[in-house]
Amino acid sequence: MTAREPIDQQQAWRALSKHAEAMREVHLKDLFQEQDGRHECYTRRAAGMMLDLSKQRWRDETLDMLLDLARAADVPSAINRLLSGERVNLSEDRPALHTALRLPADAKLEVDGKDVVPSVHRTLDRMATMVAKFQAGQWRGATGRAITDVVNLGVGGSDLGPLMVTHALADYRPRDVHPVEVHFASTMDGSQLADYLLRLNPETTLFVISSKSFTTIDTLSNARTARDWLFSHLADGNDTNGLVMRQHFIGVSASPEKMSDWGISECNQLEFWEWVGGRYSLWGAIGLPIALAVGMDNFRALLDGAHAMDRHFATAELENNLPVLLALAGIWNVNFLDIRAHSILPYDGRLEYFASYLEQLEMESNGKSVTNEGRSVTYSTCPVLWGQLGPNAQHAFYQLLHQGTQPVECDFIAPIRRYDRVEDEATRKHLKGQHRLTLANCFAQSRVLMLGDDAIEDDGPRPSHKRYRGNQPSTTLLLDRLTPETLGALVALYEHKVFVQATIWDINPFDQWGVELGKKIATQTEQILTSHEGIESLDDSSRGLIEAVWRESDY
Amino acid sequence: MTAREPIDQQQAWRALSKHAEAMREVHLKDLFQEQDGRHECYTRRAAGMMLDLSKQRWRDETLDMLLDLARAADVPSAINRLLSGERVNLSEDRPALHTALRLPADAKLEVDGKDVVPSVHRTLDRMATMVAKFQAGQWRGATGRAITDVVNLGVGGSDLGPLMVTHALADYRPRDVHPVEVHFASTMDGSQLADYLLRLNPETTLFVISSKSFTTIDTLSNARTARDWLFSHLADGNDTNGLVMRQHFIGVSASPEKMSDWGISECNQLEFWEWVGGRYSLWGAIGLPIALAVGMDNFRALLDGAHAMDRHFATAELENNLPVLLALAGIWNVNFLDIRAHSILPYDGRLEYFASYLEQLEMESNGKSVTNEGRSVTYSTCPVLWGQLGPNAQHAFYQLLHQGTQPVECDFIAPIRRYDRVEDEATRKHLKGQHRLTLANCFAQSRVLMLGDDAIEDDGPRPSHKRYRGNQPSTTLLLDRLTPETLGALVALYEHKVFVQATIWDINPFDQWGVELGKKIATQTEQILTSHEGIESLDDSSRGLIEAVWRESDY
Repeated sequence: MTAREPIDQQQAWRALSKHAEAMREVHLKDLFQEQDGRHECYTRRAAGMMLDLSKQRWRDETLDMLLDLARAADVPSAINRLLSGERVNLSEDRPALHTALRLPADAKLEVDGKDVVPSVHRTLDRMATMVAKFQAGQWRGATGRAITDVVNLGVGGSDLGPLMVTHALADYRPRDVHPVEVHFASTMDGSQLADYLLRLNPETTLFVISSKSFTTIDTLSNARTARDWLFSHLADGNDTNGLVMRQHFIGVSASPEKMSDWGISECNQLEFWEWVGGRYSLWGAIGLPIALAVGMDNFRALLDGAHAMDRHFATAELENNLPVLLALAGIWNVNFLDIRAHSILPYDGRLEYFASYLEQLEMESNGKSVTNEGRSVTYSTCPVLWGQLGPNAQHAFYQLLHQGTQPVECDFIAPIRRYDRVEDEATRKHLKGQHRLTLANCFAQSRVLMLGDDAIEDDGPRPSHKRYRGNQPSTTLLLDRLTPETLGALVALYEHKVFVQATIWDINPFDQWGVELGKKIATQTEQILTSHEGIESLDDSSRGLIEAVWRESDY
Repeated sequence: MTAREPIDQQQAWRALSKHAEAMREVHLKDLFQEQDGRHECYTRRAAGMMLDLSKQRWRDETLDMLLDLARAADVPSAINRLLSGERVNLSEDRPALHTALRLPADAKLEVDGKDVVPSVHRTLDRMATMVAKFQAGQWRGATGRAITDVVNLGVGGSDLGPLMVTHALADYRPRDVHPVEVHFASTMDGSQLADYLLRLNPETTLFVISSKSFTTIDTLSNARTARDWLFSHLADGNDTNGLVMRQHFIGVSASPEKMSDWGISECNQLEFWEWVGGRYSLWGAIGLPIALAVGMDNFRALLDGAHAMDRHFATAELENNLPVLLALAGIWNVNFLDIRAHSILPYDGRLEYFASYLEQLEMESNGKSVTNEGRSVTYSTCPVLWGQLGPNAQHAFYQLLHQGTQPVECDFIAPIRRYDRVEDEATRKHLKGQHRLTLANCFAQSRVLMLGDDAIEDDGPRPSHKRYRGNQPSTTLLLDRLTPETLGALVALYEHKVFVQATIWDINPFDQWGVELGKKIATQTEQILTSHEGIESLDDSSRGLIEAVWRESDY
């Protein structure tokens, strides 16, 4: 790639800056008043979902200028480079091929002259074999009893994706198979794992150790604790230790050597590739807990849904391209309206972990401040992104959204249909009522955030603490229903949104150098804590904190 | 109260604004270089904790000016008004007396001429009686079996506090009593509850319905579902329905009439008072699930810890007052350094829900923009606040903290001692190692956020994507250990911090008018969804969304 002119020096950006001066004074309610049919004008559909961007603080000309910006940043060719396996991850000199993980078996994708699709599907087939064995009750522990509980040990990308999807698709757990419960332990301090070890039976528990590098200290600490626990309960000699290792551990990593070193037997190793980023990895072997929980057919349906979004991303023109439009709305808010916070608000309890998942996806990908050419950016990149189930957040932080001083962009997400397949009629009616209430709340909140006081018909005199400014922009995303397919498409939508924003900001969304130094300094700090040597090299606060620990404990 | 001059017009604020112009150019690493003993200089201790504010971007003169600001806003007399039961909640014309809930039995606090302490302790004693009955296995369901599972139905303040504390104090579950598992269901759409109903036994399950107003639709929807479930499984006539109501429901509310209307028997009603805000209510009857999980002694210890912080808040001079100092650090960041985001990062898995808890406490309390006199503020109030367990967030959004473009204030929270009472020696050693590793990470991260590249000894040439700007301010809060007492003090610390900030911003932290309009519009929207009438009164986007629902479903 040749060095390009900084994006904020380009005509398209400057035009937007100028346009924003005027738009900052315009209230959302006025935009609705001046334009009939605004909903349809800013609504697009694809892959089982409908994206309504009409409550963004923009006009047609804004969107035209943003599309110019996308063209100036060469978004179409960037999409092409991403999907065709070029080395878009420049700082690590490799492609970013999470989309290859969801290609159909008859597709082809050559990377360095080699088609990667067959190896992707070999892994899927190995996962299928494993899942079938569990579901037949034939995966047995060291004492011969069938495994009933699987604990995923992983953190970050090896935790958030599988956790989020497993929870979201809990309705899709297969019946009529040997039941396997899937659990997740991620915290470095052993808290969650210790809790499981109290409750689970070592004879019927298996651990999946997930770590791309297989060096993640959080995960390996927990794995060691788990191994000790199994050995002390199940093994009485070297021979049984080997049996425990074979029957109670699966490893998922890009490093088979390190898995072998740790003692994972070869037939229990699932591999993935350096060209899959941790936070983009739920689509392959890292997704094993998902497949164990919902079955391989549903896991493949998840991939199909993501692939449908990939196809849409590859082929739809910019002005109808969901990830591109979602990205441009974000750019408009953070770079031109100075809205530096973004809230993710699903109106469906099954999406409880979706906001946490996106926190990693967006902030780890785009929390960057140097361009691909190594220049410091002179504009904002990723906003602070956080969220919570919408109905719960209504009772928690919506107060700030409605009457606080911070501007916030919100994404409302809900399925249109739910509970209509519940068998018992009375229960179905009752639950459908709860869903209708939830949708009503979803629509009402975005309406009030937009209109403020104007949402009230009788807008009579009220004290100022009962007044609402409105004008908080939001996006509403409706899924036809929450299925493996639409969930796959939803996640892919945000993945690609992140990529489009990174392209415009000229940053690399696929590296994460910002977390490396912390790991190094943590190792050094632990050595000082343990050895009581070297503290004089530290700053005064670090010294004070470490000395407080020494005073109070026997480290 | 007489109208006061807007705080940003006052000399103390103007002095800070001027001072901030210079301080914005100063890097944290320079502050450490220019001042020896900076840790001790900005560290304060109280109620079993140590607060290190040395990594805030301030100098002694900054803190002096901030203390002037606190005095200008009359913080000392505000503290006094709060604790003495004056009507500090002006818009609702009542006191805010969560601190009364943790007064010892021999204290006195007159409100409107009546001592409230005896009634507080009567409720505690009633809770104790209930807890004892459960723990003796004597609270029996309709079929005579002892209750083993209690599901708390509540949302917002009736959910987040009990959930957070129950999780944090899980180590304190009493042994040698009849075990009762406590669960939480909050989501309006029935997701969580439906999951429990699949797994729990109606004969041995009791529901606590928690709602201050006893009109919260989220909670009452779930309560109705729970009641139907119990009736269909346990009752076969009106008589047994009565038995089910008596044996399987407890109500917690400020409205005994509404509890009775719903069918909660009088002896199962726990009351609290209008002068306790929902998000400040875990200290009384709303804390019943906590007391059921950890026992009444530990619950009372939690109150004692909070009371210790209340005493400190009441008596310590401003410059040594932990809540005041924590509040001033926040004011400095949000109002003078334009840092609009605040991240809460506990390094202890037991504090998994602490960030969610604070999201409500801070953003619902201080997400306001009109003063007590009804004037629109001309300065920022509450920042966006979010968080996650620190070690997990290291693998998720720390990238943005280290290398993103958004300035963020961080609170690091950790216990100094942990696991030193584990009985088995090998396990103790192992777990203490995990805790030491966790502390090392905690200290390392705040160090790198402060120093950036300067944390590296060999600061040789590196490409710009491997460089760290540093200069992100943070607070470190170390608890001696995480106990009921220190947890109580920790929560009270943040409650009072919020109050001090509200006092300076001249806003009311105890109301939440911003959530009222949404409720009203949601009711209206549900009527339209159901009746298919009245849609023409809505904006075009709301119409489009509702029509999409009508097209796809049979509402």
